[in-house]
Amino acid sequence: MSQPLKFYFDFLNQSSRALYILLEASKIPFEAIPISMLKGEHLTGEFRDNVNRFRKLPAIIDHGYQLSENVAIFRHLAREKLVPEHWYPRRHLGRSRIDEYLAWQQTNMGVATTEYFQQKWLVPYLQKTRPADNAVNLAGKQLEHTLNEFEQLFLNSRKFMMGDNISYADLSAICEIDQPKSIGYNAFQNRNKLARWYETVREELGPHYKEVLGEFEAKLKGTGSGQQQRAVKQ
Amino acid sequence: MSQPLKFYFDFLNQSSRALYILLEASKIPFEAIPISMLKGEHLTGEFRDNVNRFRKLPAIIDHGYQLSENVAIFRHLAREKLVPEHWYPRRHLGRSRIDEYLAWQQTNMGVATTEYFQQKWLVPYLQKTRPADNAVNLAGKQLEHTLNEFEQLFLNSRKFMMGDNISYADLSAICEIDQPKSIGYNAFQNRNKLARWYETVREELGPHYKEVLGEFEAKLKGTGSGQQQRAVKQ
Repeated sequence: MSQPLKFYFDFLNQSSRALYILLEASKIPFEAIPISMLKGEHLTGEFRDNVNRFRKLPAIIDHGYQLSENVAIFRHLAREKLVPEHWYPRRHLGRSRIDEYLAWQQTNMGVATTEYFQQKWLVPYLQKTRPADNAVNLAGKQLEHTLNEFEQLFLNSRKFMMGDNISYADLSAICEIDQPKSIGYNAFQNRNKLARWYETVREELGPHYKEVLGEFEAKLKGTGSGQQQRAVKQ
Repeated sequence: MSQPLKFYFDFLNQSSRALYILLEASKIPFEAIPISMLKGEHLTGEFRDNVNRFRKLPAIIDHGYQLSENVAIFRHLAREKLVPEHWYPRRHLGRSRIDEYLAWQQTNMGVATTEYFQQKWLVPYLQKTRPADNAVNLAGKQLEHTLNEFEQLFLNSRKFMMGDNISYADLSAICEIDQPKSIGYNAFQNRNKLARWYETVREELGPHYKEVLGEFEAKLKGTGSGQQQRAVKQ
């Protein structure tokens, strides 16, 4: 028996959710190892020395090989495992287009959703204070801008970003959008195209997605009502 | 005869230099189309509609297919053209390690070098003012931090980042470091490992690199002495 891939994650993190869903949907055997960012478990020297020298989530260890970064792990899986073709299609230069989106996401969408989540939820949670209105408003404006760009640059009249089939671009993007959405942000106001695309992707992903989103939202609620010690169920 | 790749670039931009050198060193036929960022040529509606919907550099058009983003263009070339294996090696999971570095670069090194370049050179040039000391100092501190991380996380006792052979990680990184270096920043103080690696990469890249770096530095000087209308020589 070959050693299963070790996957270190926290469902509070959007890339952790996207890769977890990809692993499940692709039926890649993996050992799920939840790490609590709120407890700083990813910041310890032990995590740095034995799991990930960047002290970041998500991370994998594949037969002793440590790897970090959402896009790098995604491409590693596409090369080394049996990931169904539609997630990263070769046809019509689909891989180039997905790479372009993932690079854009890293410096645009990902920055905006993370900043909003931090200002509205994470900083107040860690510091036991109310969110700072100014900082939330500023992050909200940035998020407005990035969602408008996303709709204009990447969505069209087709079902999914790359055409008739769902790809990792859709999966990665929906997990980004859930970051603000799950803490009350209305991403769909005046964005009909985004709303239609979101619904289509949600339906297509089915139970794998619903389960992971449910765990994420339970963590948000659990921590809110003082149950932050609760372990993630696997 | 097949249509050559169209490559849109400005040597003031580090990713433009890295991809230009890769194209030359790989002997991929391409049409070099310089675009002046200082004149805002990449911001026009014509550029957006006919070249690149993101209005960003570098950009390519490959048989009518428009593509943006350094990492996406790099991977497109690796898939669709004859790029020598050492730039993106399959052996020992080299591609996964290079992907990891390029993702790190995008949110760390690239942000720090760009910010320093903007505060020290670009903003003063465009606004015809002196650099703002506070902003330059802040950007310098961020750059210190990112160069220390780069040295600790990615350099080791081997010649290049991935071992005995130069890869796109080295090429991309040296072009990042030239961004502050060429406007007077001393990247090597107390960083012997970085200095040794830089020298090794510079020697290995040879004339392709020297020519492009020379063009970049001539642009910096040319604009400084009022010759900003000078076209880039091809």
